[in-house]
This record gives sequence, C-alpha cells and structure tokens, in this order.
Amino acid sequence: MTNLNEVEILLVEDNPYDVELTLTALQENNLTNRVHVVNDGAEALEFIFATGIHSQRNIKNIPKVILLDLKLPKVNGLEVLRKIKSDERTKMIPVVVLTSSQEERDVVGSYNLGVNSYIIKPLDFNKFIDAVAKLSLYWVLVNRPPH
Amino acid sequence: MTNLNEVEILLVEDNPYDVELTLTALQENNLTNRVHVVNDGAEALEFIFATGIHSQRNIKNIPKVILLDLKLPKVNGLEVLRKIKSDERTKMIPVVVLTSSQEERDVVGSYNLGVNSYIIKPLDFNKFIDAVAKLSLYWVLVNRPPH
Repeated sequence: MTNLNEVEILLVEDNPYDVELTLTALQENNLTNRVHVVNDGAEALEFIFATGIHSQRNIKNIPKVILLDLKLPKVNGLEVLRKIKSDERTKMIPVVVLTSSQEERDVVGSYNLGVNSYIIKPLDFNKFIDAVAKLSLYWVLVNRPPH
Repeated sequence: MTNLNEVEILLVEDNPYDVELTLTALQENNLTNRVHVVNDGAEALEFIFATGIHSQRNIKNIPKVILLDLKLPKVNGLEVLRKIKSDERTKMIPVVVLTSSQEERDVVGSYNLGVNSYIIKPLDFNKFIDAVAKLSLYWVLVNRPPH
C-alpha cells in the first residue's frame, strides 16, 4: 500500500471505469506505485488538507499532480479546485482537470480558478489511455513541482 | 510570416542559442508554423497586452501557451508572469516557465504567481530538444486551452 505521505498522483474520480482506465495507463508507464485514488470531492479535500480520515497525513507532503474530475459526489470538482487554489498552503499544487465536460463554463471557470491544465477525456478507449499516459508523464517527469 | 493573431506558441527568450534549440524541437514536431519569438520582457508584455508595436493585435486572440524564460532584458520573467496572471483579460493564458534556474525562490515564486508549469532547461542538447518537444506537444495538442 502506498504511504500516503509519498503520493505523487492523487486521482479524484468517482467513475470506476475511468479509474480503471487511468490506472491501466499509469501502470503501462510504471507510474502506479505512488498513486492514490479518492472517489468524491469531500475525501479529496480531507486528503489535500490532511483533515478527517486523512488527519495523520502531513499537509506539506504535496503530490506532484492532482487529477481532478469535475462531476463528483458530495463536493463538486470546481469547488475542490477553488478551495485548493485559494489556500496559501495548497495553491502551488499542480491541478489538472480531467473531465468529459467540454462546456465553456467549466473550461473558463477552471482557468479562472487557477487550474494548471484542462484535459477533456477522449471517448475512445485507446485515446483515453494515451492522453492519461502523456499527461502523467508530463506532470510526474517533465514538470518541476513546487517541492 | 505568422499572422500575429494566430500565434499558438509565444516564445519569450533572449538567448539566441536557446531560441534556436527550441525552434529545432518545434520543427521536428511540425509545430513551427504558429510560433512567435520575442527577446525581452517588455516586448512580451506589448505582445500579450496588444500595446506598443503590437497594438494592431487583438488581445482576445490568446496563444495556446507562452514559454517564458526568467532572466530577461528590460522586464524580468517573474514580473511578466505577475502582470499576465493579475489581469482578468490574460490570467487564463497557460504560461510555462522554461528556465535554467533551479533556485527555490524562482520555483516557488512562479507557482505563487500562478504559473501553469515550471520546466528546468536540461543542459544536454538532446535532452533539451526532448523536453521542449514533450512540453510543446502537451500544451498545443493535449491541453484544452481557455478559448
């Protein structure tokens, strides 16, 4: 099991099929050893802010990237993004929205809240795997994270 | 010559050798047809805000990504970044800092100002080409830009 203080990729996704596809893409690129999956916006916030069931985490151990779905149970993705980007302790964490929404309201809303990148989930299985591979390699290996 | 209203990649770089390497990487990936190069921070701001020598541009035609060096003549990169990210008209433009600086002050400073991504220029020629190729393909083809 991944030590939650060493998570490199936090995946916030409620759709089990999309979780599976994403993990498959990460596995093919040897990136699964430090991924952690949460299935709703409330747990995402507890993880990121080290509260509730994640109060044992150190908030300073930030992931290299958060992959954030928008349509989430309990707390929606835009609200999760707003909380991350408006708190001095967490605003530096790279957040990539990974969503099926092409609505301009979601795209512009995300950029206005300070999202680092916005990716539309391809409908095609292979293209989905390819997009997740490209974005994960970029954020884990090419981008220089804040810590 | 590129129509300045259709620029996809704005490269802000004063070092002629780094400009050449970057353009080579873009060329190898068929991405040079909509790149525009400026060599100092002042001209970068004129381009982005459509003022001065770039007042004929439409400020609403934003590039898909700005590749921004930090050590620049006239106006330094952090100040260019601050101006972009603090103006409602331009804050949504994806900005990738591409620099040789590994200093924590620059890394943290950039993230605090809202940079979308921070890349350290590899010293090795081939690794530099590879990093520019990866980041350009990501921001031009994978990321969904705000417009």
